[in-house]
Amino acid sequence: MKKGETLLHIFSQHPETFVSGEEISRSLSISRTAVWKQINKLREAGYEFEAVPHKGYRMVSKPDAIQPVALIQALGTSMMGSRLKVLGSTTSTQDEARALAEDGAPEGTLVIAEEQTGGKGRLGRKWFSPAGKGVWMSLILRPNQPLQDTPQLTLLAGVAVCRAVRKMTGLDAGIKWPNDLLVDRRKICGILLESAAEEEHVRYCIVGIGISVNLDETDYPPELQGVATSLKIASGTTVDRTQLIAAVMVEFETLYELYCSQGFQPIASLWEALSVTLGESVTIKNIYGDEVHGVAAGISAAGALLVDMGDGRQVPVFSGDVELKR
Amino acid sequence: MKKGETLLHIFSQHPETFVSGEEISRSLSISRTAVWKQINKLREAGYEFEAVPHKGYRMVSKPDAIQPVALIQALGTSMMGSRLKVLGSTTSTQDEARALAEDGAPEGTLVIAEEQTGGKGRLGRKWFSPAGKGVWMSLILRPNQPLQDTPQLTLLAGVAVCRAVRKMTGLDAGIKWPNDLLVDRRKICGILLESAAEEEHVRYCIVGIGISVNLDETDYPPELQGVATSLKIASGTTVDRTQLIAAVMVEFETLYELYCSQGFQPIASLWEALSVTLGESVTIKNIYGDEVHGVAAGISAAGALLVDMGDGRQVPVFSGDVELKR
Repeated sequence: MKKGETLLHIFSQHPETFVSGEEISRSLSISRTAVWKQINKLREAGYEFEAVPHKGYRMVSKPDAIQPVALIQALGTSMMGSRLKVLGSTTSTQDEARALAEDGAPEGTLVIAEEQTGGKGRLGRKWFSPAGKGVWMSLILRPNQPLQDTPQLTLLAGVAVCRAVRKMTGLDAGIKWPNDLLVDRRKICGILLESAAEEEHVRYCIVGIGISVNLDETDYPPELQGVATSLKIASGTTVDRTQLIAAVMVEFETLYELYCSQGFQPIASLWEALSVTLGESVTIKNIYGDEVHGVAAGISAAGALLVDMGDGRQVPVFSGDVELKR
Repeated sequence: MKKGETLLHIFSQHPETFVSGEEISRSLSISRTAVWKQINKLREAGYEFEAVPHKGYRMVSKPDAIQPVALIQALGTSMMGSRLKVLGSTTSTQDEARALAEDGAPEGTLVIAEEQTGGKGRLGRKWFSPAGKGVWMSLILRPNQPLQDTPQLTLLAGVAVCRAVRKMTGLDAGIKWPNDLLVDRRKICGILLESAAEEEHVRYCIVGIGISVNLDETDYPPELQGVATSLKIASGTTVDRTQLIAAVMVEFETLYELYCSQGFQPIASLWEALSVTLGESVTIKNIYGDEVHGVAAGISAAGALLVDMGDGRQVPVFSGDVELKR
């Protein structure tokens, strides 16, 4: 990208105007064919050019890349995002964050990627993470608490992202247990909480957050169309990802401080207020093959979903997939 | 160690006899000083030499190194130890095993080191792991179970090692909750269970096992003398580490199969039979600063220690340090 950067420099000197291929060729001491190749490389990176014979190239738009400097300015947090790693393409921000956590990275370290080639979803699924279109990030937490309390953090993460999305877009986002975000009953965000423990003590948690921000319907593979949506599709406008990341970090920090000082109860209340699951008939399947059918009644003190079985029993469910019956 | 290996070859051709420095110098085409340096390197690795002026060097003893080939022959298991990584010196076999587990290493993968330079104990402590004197190893498990059941594996590991030690040495080893092994009320083994989870599902567990095998009293730093002991100190004889590792793996495999097919109850019964904690007045401190005082009464279905509080209440304790009052 050394040559690509110089090419960008030329266009930044000629905003909105055409620059001839010959002029670029001369400035960079490369052939006309090499100029064309460099332009195409930039197109692949999300830059758009108008090319007109005898006039040359004009830069029409830049990609909406996440800029670390702009993000740092936007953050306004003291801990969350206090250490940043912004990557172009990576296999999975969860794996990047885990490696950092094992190396001793502090609480609040945030890993962001423009693209994930092996993005991970819950229950071993893949997470569709195309370049430049979403917020794919992983946050390191080091809560001083026993392992059995981690389901509470799963719910806290859902509340944080839901509040940020609502504030940024005005969309009526709701939480499907445990922490999927839905708009118009379609998924716009998935959250994956991974944890590492020594016996019963949490060493660290990694909160993976995937928000489908500026995807168009045609960006989705067929199997996701109708199931997934994006903030852009739902709101009709492009959303600034840098500002969205900052908003999520602000909400996360506020809620995490509340959680550390006052415990889980206020988080549970906020979760219940944003839930689209409570009061619904649900079927929950977990990866061990167990199924629970009943009515989602509330959140337990430990962070489990309480399911009314219809026979007076209330069963706590910690993990699984919810199917809402309507 | 290329030259060291050739030096070893020379001594293996002259068992029990002296080889002159001049002869070695000639054979390896190195200076007399270089020979002396090579001899010292081997001494550091645990070889012992007698050096007599005008006669040369005689190898007195070889280190009792763990030999992968001999171990594979001794194992007799189908899963535990089916993949082996035997290291000379490493920071921590837990870290090595974790890296392998993240790379997809299968259940039963075993990492062994002759020496750990940063051996880890429970509750953030260090574990003294000098070269060639102990069994320092980490076993990867991938149990298909929820996170809340991992305390059961902590106890299972203690039972497996205790049974292996008893069979190999005849020593009256007992388990201090949760899984320290004591002989003559001094510690001979520590076990550390680390786990990685995705939400409530265990991705893998790493069982770290440190057995002080052939340490002499003088091998211990002052702060461990009187607190720690070794199989050699307690039994009066050197124990074959390769055979001991094989014995632990056999016991582990048997118990793990029992656990996977019949659940925790039979493991709990075996643990209770080997326990030196049950029936004792105990104080248990955890890392959050909580303390519980009472009489250790039994093991709960979830794997917690049940403590009789003396007022009719029985409290389950999952993690902490036990102090036995006598």
